[in-house]
Amino acid sequence: MSLETLKIVPLGGLGEFGMNCMAVQWKDDIVVIDAGLMFPEDDMLGVNIVVPDISFLTENREKVRGILLTHGHEDHIGGLPWILSELNVPVYGTEFTLTLVEGKLEEHKLLDDADLIEMLPGSSFELGPFRVSPLRVTHSLVDCVALAIRTPVGTIVHTGDFKIDLSSPDGHPFDLQSFAELGKEGVLLLMQDSTNVDRPGFTPGELAVLPRLDEIFARTERRLFFTCFSSSIHRIKLAMDLAHKHGRKVALIGRSMDNATEIAQDLGYIDPPPGLLIHSGQLKDMPPEKVCVLISGTQGEPMSALSRAAVDNHKHARIEAGDTVVFSSRVIPGNEKPIYNVIDHLYRRKARVIHDDGRSGLIHVSGHASQEELRLMINLLRPKYFIPVHGDYRHLTQHVEVAVGTGIPQQAMLVEDGEVIELTAGSMSKTGKVATGRVLIDSGSATEAVEEMIIRDRKHLSEGGLVLAIITIDKMTGRQQGAPEIVTRGFAVNEQAMATELRQTIAHTIESSSIEERRDWMLIKEKVRSDLKRQIQKSTGRRPMIMPVILEI
Amino acid sequence: MSLETLKIVPLGGLGEFGMNCMAVQWKDDIVVIDAGLMFPEDDMLGVNIVVPDISFLTENREKVRGILLTHGHEDHIGGLPWILSELNVPVYGTEFTLTLVEGKLEEHKLLDDADLIEMLPGSSFELGPFRVSPLRVTHSLVDCVALAIRTPVGTIVHTGDFKIDLSSPDGHPFDLQSFAELGKEGVLLLMQDSTNVDRPGFTPGELAVLPRLDEIFARTERRLFFTCFSSSIHRIKLAMDLAHKHGRKVALIGRSMDNATEIAQDLGYIDPPPGLLIHSGQLKDMPPEKVCVLISGTQGEPMSALSRAAVDNHKHARIEAGDTVVFSSRVIPGNEKPIYNVIDHLYRRKARVIHDDGRSGLIHVSGHASQEELRLMINLLRPKYFIPVHGDYRHLTQHVEVAVGTGIPQQAMLVEDGEVIELTAGSMSKTGKVATGRVLIDSGSATEAVEEMIIRDRKHLSEGGLVLAIITIDKMTGRQQGAPEIVTRGFAVNEQAMATELRQTIAHTIESSSIEERRDWMLIKEKVRSDLKRQIQKSTGRRPMIMPVILEI
Repeated sequence: MSLETLKIVPLGGLGEFGMNCMAVQWKDDIVVIDAGLMFPEDDMLGVNIVVPDISFLTENREKVRGILLTHGHEDHIGGLPWILSELNVPVYGTEFTLTLVEGKLEEHKLLDDADLIEMLPGSSFELGPFRVSPLRVTHSLVDCVALAIRTPVGTIVHTGDFKIDLSSPDGHPFDLQSFAELGKEGVLLLMQDSTNVDRPGFTPGELAVLPRLDEIFARTERRLFFTCFSSSIHRIKLAMDLAHKHGRKVALIGRSMDNATEIAQDLGYIDPPPGLLIHSGQLKDMPPEKVCVLISGTQGEPMSALSRAAVDNHKHARIEAGDTVVFSSRVIPGNEKPIYNVIDHLYRRKARVIHDDGRSGLIHVSGHASQEELRLMINLLRPKYFIPVHGDYRHLTQHVEVAVGTGIPQQAMLVEDGEVIELTAGSMSKTGKVATGRVLIDSGSATEAVEEMIIRDRKHLSEGGLVLAIITIDKMTGRQQGAPEIVTRGFAVNEQAMATELRQTIAHTIESSSIEERRDWMLIKEKVRSDLKRQIQKSTGRRPMIMPVILEI
Repeated sequence: MSLETLKIVPLGGLGEFGMNCMAVQWKDDIVVIDAGLMFPEDDMLGVNIVVPDISFLTENREKVRGILLTHGHEDHIGGLPWILSELNVPVYGTEFTLTLVEGKLEEHKLLDDADLIEMLPGSSFELGPFRVSPLRVTHSLVDCVALAIRTPVGTIVHTGDFKIDLSSPDGHPFDLQSFAELGKEGVLLLMQDSTNVDRPGFTPGELAVLPRLDEIFARTERRLFFTCFSSSIHRIKLAMDLAHKHGRKVALIGRSMDNATEIAQDLGYIDPPPGLLIHSGQLKDMPPEKVCVLISGTQGEPMSALSRAAVDNHKHARIEAGDTVVFSSRVIPGNEKPIYNVIDHLYRRKARVIHDDGRSGLIHVSGHASQEELRLMINLLRPKYFIPVHGDYRHLTQHVEVAVGTGIPQQAMLVEDGEVIELTAGSMSKTGKVATGRVLIDSGSATEAVEEMIIRDRKHLSEGGLVLAIITIDKMTGRQQGAPEIVTRGFAVNEQAMATELRQTIAHTIESSSIEERRDWMLIKEKVRSDLKRQIQKSTGRRPMIMPVILEI
């Protein structure tokens, strides 16, 4: 790697959705953009979250000046506990983002050691050789920024997540002027969100759901249950406004809904009129047509308030015949089963369910830019070079095509995690690779990594269960002491009959081994394992994990 | 239950998708409609398939006259090996359906004992007190029938799966006349497929995909890979016709694609012109613009031919830059991740991918009737009573509304699995419940049930792994012999350090127990388990399965 170049090193989110993380290096200074997580796939058993491998950062730990956060969604901040536990550097974010980060770090007892520094949209600051300007963008969350970073070779811009919402519901408009100004000054590289690159046109603004939701509030005769992502502060505010307009009091139910609303209120994003909010315990005393319940559980999470209410297992949220339940959210792929399970239970209670099935009107909008907004951003910034970020390989491919189609960038490049890009004022090229990958964090933890081998064992155990054979050997004679103990878990057979069969197999394996072999217990263990495996597969067709344990006494 | 009534007892498929199975009883005679399976949900670890609990049938085994199959999809025939292994009765089906059944029973060594009887669409036959008329319907599969069953109280009709395809691609039209005739004679009860009740309008016919697929064949310059459900005989035929028209030879790759095509050829549904089919080994010698590869793997199944080809790991199916891959199929909910994983790999090989993303034109159609077809069927049959089948609770609810909306049935009733319906010529009512449920069949098997407890153990093992503590006790003295052996699997900690800690805990538990307690090894085992559990959770936050084993020597 040359020393007089700017290096871009994506560590996560290029070639996958989630765990967004990218390093930007000039000589001995590195800044990191975002520190996200990914949720585990089905076969990552017992895994809590997935975070990027940051060995590139830990190997260069003395160079890392800080982590810059674009906004507070989990795929941008959720990896922070893990990253900070490996590499404690200053974290920069806007007020709202840092409030979410604080809660997260406190939960994992990392807050005391953390150095959180607030960024103000529109106010630039120095970080090593870089001058960082957070620029306000609009998104489904509040207080989101893109990052313009002035470097010795030119200005690079990372959009973070965004859409161009021309009616920003919190009164903080998208900072078109600053982007245009940057475009005039000259932008070397644009790195832009690819999430919705497969959608033509413009993404509707947050307020586009207002007419249909207003109609639903107007037509609802009994209780109205309203669920949305708890981070959708705009949506929560809108629901409260509509409840107020239509003479309904609002109760908040569910921990995530409570937390998000409290933070949003503290920071002034939500300011409900006095008396609008009621305690959920008051619901039972209110006429059904006078209440709106904001409840968490859009994805059918089994322990969420809505899932429990749907099976009549929530103290305060009781759903009765004729009540209305609105899902102002999307189905995250993979969650169809639990969500439709909840919807079915709501139908069983004779509730009216309105969800985003393509036939319910506009009750949810995406937070990510569609093709025309992506083109508009490229036109505003007129970058010399272009790299798509945040997406699977096919999104990155399509985004390169969209960028090239504008006729603006000299070069648009498809880059994946771990590829090192070097930039000068007049060139962009791939020059190397660094180690990247997914670190699996174990359940019940945010910082404890779990190895592939452990997951493989869990997978084996989960598919076939376990057969344990404990063989006791007399140290003096080398003979078995009594019959082996056979114990199974998660293995579906008649244990008694199977035990007899397996004891014979073990006896045969040991007896047919030579004296030399019998002195090598590791060898005998392997022979027993492989003979039991063959025997069990022959007689049951199944493949449990087989654990022979040999005790010498 | 009264004796002079017809009883309808749904055992599966009413309140869920899949494992369709329904009993129809008149006095001492029972016939069963369909014997389907369901695919396991994510948390059913190590489960191969899910089939209905048929204790109602086994408790009345001397009354069961036979199983009538409407068509050959897995959710209608996949439970047969299990059911026949519990209850060997004659199985009635059309020619194509029985051919699929034969293959399935042979695989599980049940064919020799099976009594398979062919039904001819349009030909009635007697079965106990019933006269059964299979009526030809159209669907995504071939040789599908509805069943009209004349009973002592009147005629009942079960639609099976259907849509009303007015251009049936196999030349066997939907038998509108017979349905109309039944309607004229009088139908007591209609039981109708609810799968697409949430879709307004008509479902497009199978040939509706022709124009867009023709265009794709015409515009493809290099190799064309075409994947569809292997049971979609119509689609396979269409792809072969288009290949022929556009001067491409056809290679079949993938076991399920091979099997289905062979059966369809044997039965005359597909009749490729001589020389059209080539062996997959010949592909490498053919110019890329002269071949079409029919390949299995629409759902991204990891071992499917397409998934392997996508990572360049298939002997014959090599996908190169500029090749086209068409997914003429839908994404079954829950399969998004593996499918998009395959699509991403195809993009990496620079293939052009065309899949049903809502923006690729009509390349796939559903096989199930939409609302207008459901209404048309009700209008043809003019049933007195109506029960929706095949659907989640919300589909059944909506279907009752659709039926009532036609103004035709006197009564439409939402019925779930296990509810017993009694019919006379002038009444329909719910009169009881029978035991129903899901039987989980273990991996590697089609007939071995696995208990809930086993699945719970697997779940526990999969989430936290296993900690095994083997404690050796001297029978004479009641004291530990040496230190306990600690073994872990799927549990992510430093095993050495953990072992030392846990040995101390065990020693403490045993020493602090009274002499009486120490004589009761079951009790000691429980105390050790609970102390280890507390200790592990305290020091690691995790919850592995803990198995203390006590050996007395």
